[in-house]
Amino acid sequence: MKRLYFDYAATSLSADGNPSSKYTEGKLAKKQLEDARSKAAAVLGCLPEQLYWTSGGTESNALVIHSFGLRLVRGTNNLSVFSSAVVSSDSEHPSVRENIALLSNLLQTDFKAVPASKIVSLCSDDTQLVCLMAVNNETGGINDVQSICSQLHAVHKRIHIHVDAVQALGKIPVNLAEWDCNSAAFSAHKIGGPRGIGLLYLRKPLEVVYRGGGQEKGIRSGTENTAGAVAFAECIERYAGSDLQTQMQAATERMQKLISTLQTFPRCHVLPVDRVSEGASHLQYSPWIVQVSIDGIPGEVMVRVLDDAGIAVSTGSACSNNKKERAYPFEGIRISQGYNTSMQDIDALCAAIKDILCKL
Amino acid sequence: MKRLYFDYAATSLSADGNPSSKYTEGKLAKKQLEDARSKAAAVLGCLPEQLYWTSGGTESNALVIHSFGLRLVRGTNNLSVFSSAVVSSDSEHPSVRENIALLSNLLQTDFKAVPASKIVSLCSDDTQLVCLMAVNNETGGINDVQSICSQLHAVHKRIHIHVDAVQALGKIPVNLAEWDCNSAAFSAHKIGGPRGIGLLYLRKPLEVVYRGGGQEKGIRSGTENTAGAVAFAECIERYAGSDLQTQMQAATERMQKLISTLQTFPRCHVLPVDRVSEGASHLQYSPWIVQVSIDGIPGEVMVRVLDDAGIAVSTGSACSNNKKERAYPFEGIRISQGYNTSMQDIDALCAAIKDILCKL
Repeated sequence: MKRLYFDYAATSLSADGNPSSKYTEGKLAKKQLEDARSKAAAVLGCLPEQLYWTSGGTESNALVIHSFGLRLVRGTNNLSVFSSAVVSSDSEHPSVRENIALLSNLLQTDFKAVPASKIVSLCSDDTQLVCLMAVNNETGGINDVQSICSQLHAVHKRIHIHVDAVQALGKIPVNLAEWDCNSAAFSAHKIGGPRGIGLLYLRKPLEVVYRGGGQEKGIRSGTENTAGAVAFAECIERYAGSDLQTQMQAATERMQKLISTLQTFPRCHVLPVDRVSEGASHLQYSPWIVQVSIDGIPGEVMVRVLDDAGIAVSTGSACSNNKKERAYPFEGIRISQGYNTSMQDIDALCAAIKDILCKL
Repeated sequence: MKRLYFDYAATSLSADGNPSSKYTEGKLAKKQLEDARSKAAAVLGCLPEQLYWTSGGTESNALVIHSFGLRLVRGTNNLSVFSSAVVSSDSEHPSVRENIALLSNLLQTDFKAVPASKIVSLCSDDTQLVCLMAVNNETGGINDVQSICSQLHAVHKRIHIHVDAVQALGKIPVNLAEWDCNSAAFSAHKIGGPRGIGLLYLRKPLEVVYRGGGQEKGIRSGTENTAGAVAFAECIERYAGSDLQTQMQAATERMQKLISTLQTFPRCHVLPVDRVSEGASHLQYSPWIVQVSIDGIPGEVMVRVLDDAGIAVSTGSACSNNKKERAYPFEGIRISQGYNTSMQDIDALCAAIKDILCKL
């Protein structure tokens, strides 16, 4: 029998009910949402109830940082105590950096942005929040999250360590149980999923700033994006799960080819210089991202000339393109590959760069 | 020639570039995003640059309210001045109510929640923000936004009036130029669009809490959801534009049939009682939503029994189902129809309710 739908004020799609609704369509949507959560949790190494669907990596980062803002505002009587309430690595994504900057300005409290290697030594008993990027979105540099969390929590048990894992998921191994961080942010569209869906891992619930209908146990209000969650979970299962090792191996081979070829080109520098020294005891750079600078050709020119040749590369990250100032001066390009990139694509990219070097 | 994509760190979909990227795929995505914005603006009666894509209605509401929170925190020296810094109608959606409640608690400042008709008389020179729902999501009651804005701005030019227009868009006429509000929130999935995309109208930019890569001119950071925006704009063009009058007329006829039929049933009450007195000078209730209570059958039972009969109706809104306490006691059901609802569907719903009334 055809069902009749009379809850259009909840959501217009009768084929995809509102997971908070109590009738058949709602229960089905709820089941899909929870199945997706369980799938993601199994791969990420956490409990399903520790994962919350958000609109993306930016929101996941902002939600955690402003939760600490809320805590700091409530504790304004003791504001002077929090002289280094927040410590972050010095190369965080703007969705971490800009939110911390707002807190710092608003609460007139210092925060420290330091090299990841110095985080442990610069935290004090006053430090409440540490933000740490797993894979840098511009250099591909990998922070040893597990080691830093372990050292920090050994001395300061109560410090909350938030990990921006947007460029790590599906690219390098991510295991939240091993990392021992307190929260982590993930985005679907970086690993083949749709825009507008992300995940936030919270070991324990936090009080949040943006509120509403109380969906996602009050952590992230707003009608749940069931279709987005289902698609994201599929991508996690595949790219952060079953296919990860194969894909990483293939990406590493392509990246080694790219780097070794570019090194033979005059004026061409793979950054940072120590990246090319292979053989480290653990993975130091993501095989998916590399920065390259070319003497005499600014990054923006290189992006335009390669675009004319039918090749898309970036200057810094797309996010940085919106900012007037970049975190650090960089005049080169970022080359980032994906699951569908082939060795032939790498060869074609190298040939195009070589061609440009001859002409410009 | 096949193009090569090497910006997977920006977004994984080479067919749908990152609008902030400077190469061909990025420019195409940017054009799609801006075309969608222009389409939406033409229907809504504002400038394209006054519209910002968000993740939905909840975020649009929260963003505006916490922007005022930021302003109030910055002005904490004068906190006592803001004795009624925020005034809202007393039947707002949780995404307005809960965020105002947080500000009120955090800043130890009073806010007033009053009937919409009393908003004008209760605002003072200290009032900074007024929140007003265009169409109530549970009763379908319509607030005369244009009249309230006009009266308020005549006396208090600088008051910011925020309108939650989620249940108004595509359901009743929305014209931001006529309304003369300062901001308004819209959601795609209530009018046939996908989840995870919404719009925020801001007459003038505001300082925001959640920050990041600076997309949407810094108002809403995070990689832009191009596909969602394009789909939402199509829905706005159709349902809030070309098809609005036809759809409203058809919905009104179906709603009149529904209400007049339910009135003949014993124990069945259309709420509020003054809803059934037709002939008011302007539209007082949305023809898309009606509340009904039935003596002796609690709403939750009614939802379950109708679900067993293959019909989806709701108790309050899905959002309220997440809350332990409702804003006001209501033991009935909410019936809300959509663009695909037919007169036959209404007849079948009435027959099913009649049948249940005989049995229970």
